[in-house]
Amino acid sequence: MVMNMAHEHSLEEFRRYREKMNEKILARGNLGIKRFFNLDTQAYLDGALPRKTKELLGLVASLVLPCDDYVTNLIIQCVEAKVTDEESFEAFKVGLIVGGSITIPHLRYAVDTLEECRRKPASESLDSISGYSQ
Amino acid sequence: MVMNMAHEHSLEEFRRYREKMNEKILARGNLGIKRFFNLDTQAYLDGALPRKTKELLGLVASLVLPCDDYVTNLIIQCVEAKVTDEESFEAFKVGLIVGGSITIPHLRYAVDTLEECRRKPASESLDSISGYSQ
Amino acid sequence: MVMNMAHEHSLEEFRRYREKMNEKILARGNLGIKRFFNLDTQAYLDGALPRKTKELLGLVASLVLPCDDYVTNLIIQCVEAKVTDEESFEAFKVGLIVGGSITIPHLRYAVDTLEECRRKPASESLDSISGYSQ
Amino acid sequence: MVMNMAHEHSLEEFRRYREKMNEKILARGNLGIKRFFNLDTQAYLDGALPRKTKELLGLVASLVLPCDDYVTNLIIQCVEAKVTDEESFEAFKVGLIVGGSITIPHLRYAVDTLEECRRKPASESLDSISGYSQ
Amino acid sequence: MVMNMAHEHSLEEFRRYREKMNEKILARGNLGIKRFFNLDTQAYLDGALPRKTKELLGLVASLVLPCDDYVTNLIIQCVEAKVTDEESFEAFKVGLIVGGSITIPHLRYAVDTLEECRRKPASESLDSISGYSQ
Amino acid sequence: MVMNMAHEHSLEEFRRYREKMNEKILARGNLGIKRFFNLDTQAYLDGALPRKTKELLGLVASLVLPCDDYVTNLIIQCVEAKVTDEESFEAFKVGLIVGGSITIPHLRYAVDTLEECRRKPASESLDSISGYSQ
Repeated sequence: MVMNMAHEHSLEEFRRYREKMNEKILARGNLGIKRFFNLDTQAYLDGALPRKTKELLGLVASLVLPCDDYVTNLIIQCVEAKVTDEESFEAFKVGLIVGGSITIPHLRYAVDTLEECRRKPASESLDSISGYSQ
Repeated sequence: MVMNMAHEHSLEEFRRYREKMNEKILARGNLGIKRFFNLDTQAYLDGALPRKTKELLGLVASLVLPCDDYVTNLIIQCVEAKVTDEESFEAFKVGLIVGGSITIPHLRYAVDTLEECRRKPASESLDSISGYSQ
Repeated sequence: MVMNMAHEHSLEEFRRYREKMNEKILARGNLGIKRFFNLDTQAYLDGALPRKTKELLGLVASLVLPCDDYVTNLIIQCVEAKVTDEESFEAFKVGLIVGGSITIPHLRYAVDTLEECRRKPASESLDSISGYSQ
Repeated sequence: MVMNMAHEHSLEEFRRYREKMNEKILARGNLGIKRFFNLDTQAYLDGALPRKTKELLGLVASLVLPCDDYVTNLIIQCVEAKVTDEESFEAFKVGLIVGGSITIPHLRYAVDTLEECRRKPASESLDSISGYSQ
Repeated sequence: MVMNMAHEHSLEEFRRYREKMNEKILARGNLGIKRFFNLDTQAYLDGALPRKTKELLGLVASLVLPCDDYVTNLIIQCVEAKVTDEESFEAFKVGLIVGGSITIPHLRYAVDTLEECRRKPASESLDSISGYSQ
Repeated sequence: MVMNMAHEHSLEEFRRYREKMNEKILARGNLGIKRFFNLDTQAYLDGALPRKTKELLGLVASLVLPCDDYVTNLIIQCVEAKVTDEESFEAFKVGLIVGGSITIPHLRYAVDTLEECRRKPASESLDSISGYSQ
């Protein structure tokens, strides 16, 4: 059940693990994978929709699919994009109603991760990680 | 393949069918189902996030899950919420990249439905349908 | 949108199509596929749980995944297993709340199929179809 | 891999974590989320179908989607609803065959959780937790 | 039910519809979408794995997710890549067992599409369609 | 987050846990479950497609669904079937593009598990485990 019990240590582990593994994956030189990672990073940049809205789109997608690691990524990015808690909870509501009660464990995890992010400055800018992806 | 070839007739059929069946479902008097339908309708109203953003959240969720009928609903509602095509395509992009190429047939369908909605005024206000739901 | 508008013709088509294709599939002689079809047919027979309950289990699974053709199968089988409409709607409610509003188009379709089954005797016994499967 | 190795400690952690996070979520005062949690709790109460059958419906849904935390919830609730192991395994079988071998890791987890529940009285009545939800 | 009853007309419609809509989508000039379509097309080209194997990988993915339109694409591509029926059925078997009986309606559809492709030369080379994607 | 950080200990735990739980499940004597486990084991044996290709089919299916435990199984089996890293990464690419960025956390986990398998001989032959399944 540890998987749904976020705490500072695990979030730090998560960031380091994601960065380490992304680097290993990109080091393999599979061009299609590298291009997809870049596409994925660019998908959330400001455009016809502001980054903030796009992070919320990704957040709801991660809730309904669902994928806890993806939820973690999007929560971190929403906090960096200055999404307020009220906005996050409105997005959670849409995800919960569209995706059903199967999303509730993931919602708990999302809220836990959100609170953790609020407790500490997200000093590491994820966007600055070369080859960064979800 | 008809399912992925939207045209005026089918969209009209879709609206009538949805309304007819929603009424039949609600007429059965299952309280939990009725309450869920109401919750679902309310989920998209203006709140900490504007309706427009919430319709986009629902749209991306429908693309990644995916569900063509749900896509149709959200496209109709996005048009009513004054979402521009550029904004819709930005949301499509996020859905496509998060959900992968399995969403492409649903993207085609979403774009087709979007163009159909643009060709004609969405005279029927869906929100005014009592007991309306996705 | 035709896919979500059940009527007598399509249900008859559906039965014939399923039977024809199942026969074609089994005629190919792939042993693993044949064994799976048999397992699937046997899964709904009376056991520690009555067939009726198992059909409802399959019905909810088909709603939350979701798969309209699978919903059609299970609705037909639930009617044959003497599941009442009230029981079906209770199962629909669980599926709707667990699976979320993304299941609503499939719920409409399930109710439409249920009404169609009520209008006419399900004369063809599906269980008697050799090699029958979902 | 810890996520799929249930033992008493983790189940207790799971209960406490779920309760703590549900309280935090409900404390935010998002009405739609609160109403959904209530709907979800009510969905499993006795009705046209007994609670026992509805817990099995939720259990199979959680297996095929799949969601391990949701499986844990439903296993706990099935035990409380006096579902026998034979009945649970019949439900597991339906979930396994409908959802395929991708459900096997979740089945292992479900059986492990079931055995853990059998080893100790489920003293905490989940239904009595205000705002309880999956 | 029409959606699961392939016949020559619908397959031709499908090809034309896919091509027409892909062109419309790409004409909108959303760079992320265009790049994704290209990535998707390139993913199936010969590499460390032969195209034939990759088409089978895509076919099984489309069966387990499932997406009928995606199944149609992959069946067409498998036939072009000289996948034999025996090989296709072995892939169907893996998809059926991994994905469960929920894939059976999609398997019927896949076999129907496969037989249709065998009846006529797939004269249109899909790879030659600029901007082609699933 | 532990769930996505494979290391030798957890992989060993995983193997032992899977074997222990499979034995417990089979010991319950549910015939349908036993037959499904056997079908699942047989699905990956050499046939019209070599085992190696079938393991890759299962691997991509586990990435797009997604299921980390299933990914672990298939990575172990791919290594035993002499799949090269280049071939695995080509399969990862197809899974990533078909399934989208939601598969990225599972891809990280798959690569981590692959590296762990490369570091040590997979001495235990999984196929020799009676009643073995995913």
